Amino acid sequence: MDDKVKQQLSDYKKLIEQKLDEFIPVKYPEKIWESMRYSVLAGGKRLRPILTLETCKILSGSYEQAIPTACAIEMLHSQSLIHDDLPCMDNDDYRRGKLTNHKVYGESTAVLAGDALLSFAPQVIIQNTKFLNNDVNSPEIILKVLEEFLTAAGAEKLIAGQVVDIDSEGKQIPKETLNFIHENKTGALFKLSMRTGAILGGADEKTLQAVTDYAEKIGLAFQIMDDILDVTSTLEELGKTPGKDQAEGKVTYISFYGLEESKKQVASLCKQACDILKQRDIKSDILTAIANSINERVN
Amino acid sequence: MDDKVKQQLSDYKKLIEQKLDEFIPVKYPEKIWESMRYSVLAGGKRLRPILTLETCKILSGSYEQAIPTACAIEMLHSQSLIHDDLPCMDNDDYRRGKLTNHKVYGESTAVLAGDALLSFAPQVIIQNTKFLNNDVNSPEIILKVLEEFLTAAGAEKLIAGQVVDIDSEGKQIPKETLNFIHENKTGALFKLSMRTGAILGGADEKTLQAVTDYAEKIGLAFQIMDDILDVTSTLEELGKTPGKDQAEGKVTYISFYGLEESKKQVASLCKQACDILKQRDIKSDILTAIANSINERVN
Repeated sequence: MDDKVKQQLSDYKKLIEQKLDEFIPVKYPEKIWESMRYSVLAGGKRLRPILTLETCKILSGSYEQAIPTACAIEMLHSQSLIHDDLPCMDNDDYRRGKLTNHKVYGESTAVLAGDALLSFAPQVIIQNTKFLNNDVNSPEIILKVLEEFLTAAGAEKLIAGQVVDIDSEGKQIPKETLNFIHENKTGALFKLSMRTGAILGGADEKTLQAVTDYAEKIGLAFQIMDDILDVTSTLEELGKTPGKDQAEGKVTYISFYGLEESKKQVASLCKQACDILKQRDIKSDILTAIANSINERVN
Repeated sequence: MDDKVKQQLSDYKKLIEQKLDEFIPVKYPEKIWESMRYSVLAGGKRLRPILTLETCKILSGSYEQAIPTACAIEMLHSQSLIHDDLPCMDNDDYRRGKLTNHKVYGESTAVLAGDALLSFAPQVIIQNTKFLNNDVNSPEIILKVLEEFLTAAGAEKLIAGQVVDIDSEGKQIPKETLNFIHENKTGALFKLSMRTGAILGGADEKTLQAVTDYAEKIGLAFQIMDDILDVTSTLEELGKTPGKDQAEGKVTYISFYGLEESKKQVASLCKQACDILKQRDIKSDILTAIANSINERVN
């Protein structure tokens, strides 16, 4: 990754973290707002909101109108992690190198912090999205973004993936089921990030489809890499407990294809993602760098 | 309550239950959709959605455009009950005379069913609200309704009440804290029901304020009656475990005012609610009957 791209990614990350900090206040009762802030501001790559901002920018020349949506998607991502980590779900003690939400604030607050983020995130979109040209269609655009957001967050996507994932633990599931889990648990949020960025950037149907295809490829690559890292990483590198998949009897891409073949798949998917951009003449050093970086990620 | 009003309430209830059944499909993975349906279709008075429909109707002559919002509010109410009943919260086994969601579907599905309802409910509003006159402002109105909905559902209202409620268990809290809990846990949903009905019915600011005031009175009356019934009812009458407040060391209106004084307060609040309607010249036999019925409720 060249220095200019690195700097741009770092600028995006800084902007997102500053805006997340601004958007989530601390009010009475402080405990709930602090627990929301704890998880949302716990770091992370901010990959999803960066995808939203960059997609909007390459299509419209500006990312301003996508900032609230980008932050809302990061809040949704945090929400899903808080609930995933609960004792009744994956029962994780660490996330991003820090204690999980329920370990710090208790189980009931962690459940409620997730709930609160789930209704706060679309509120951030409604209350903060500002169109530069004061577009008369802006309420329709916001409703379209909200529909994408709520569909991705719900039982048709993210939660469908999570339910099938939990039900599959310790079972010999077919590849189709593994794909279903990842398309919905991981893929849906990557697609949401790019599709909302595209909608806010005024994309036509063809471009919307192109970024959706790109998102699908990198989403799957990202997930396979997650499976790989669970096998090859340490707690320190990963920021969460490694080796959990095997300990819980989870079927992963490694169980089907082995480590080497899985790595090859990641490389191939990242290349396909870059090819999609090239074919549709979407020029973004950032999107190309993100696709390539998934191939090289260590956490 | 006269027979005509009884019939109207029963018609509203039937309509709401039919629409809830229509709105929530059963898709793959069936378990999550079935668990959502289990709690939402588990009966109940449907008081909140009735308030939405009736408020919209008295202001605009039609309740059609309020049906999706009314159902969304009932879904939100169910969501809050599913999560409230979890072992890490109130740990309840029964609700409305049936096993609670986590008792039937397990804890992880109950958490996810709540999450799913929380994103599905506003989606129902966006996807199904139809204005009879094809109002050009309809996207703005829907956004306004969504803002009310998301604010009420979140850490500023419903969840704020729930957090303070849980934190207050076994503590000697002042009256102000008890009021805060009820204004947010119960009052916020009553207000939301009437305010969204009013917004969808095209209410002006003065009328919006009047229905908000009415909702505040009956919301508080409803909650005090809840405290009373927890002391005076059996499991069979109540449909949930009675005597829980005392067992958990919860401070209630009874602890501050005693049983008789609490009953008087309910009667007074119901009368005040009816007076508000009269003063503002809002004529609705249903709203009057609902205020009076809270005084007489047994479950």
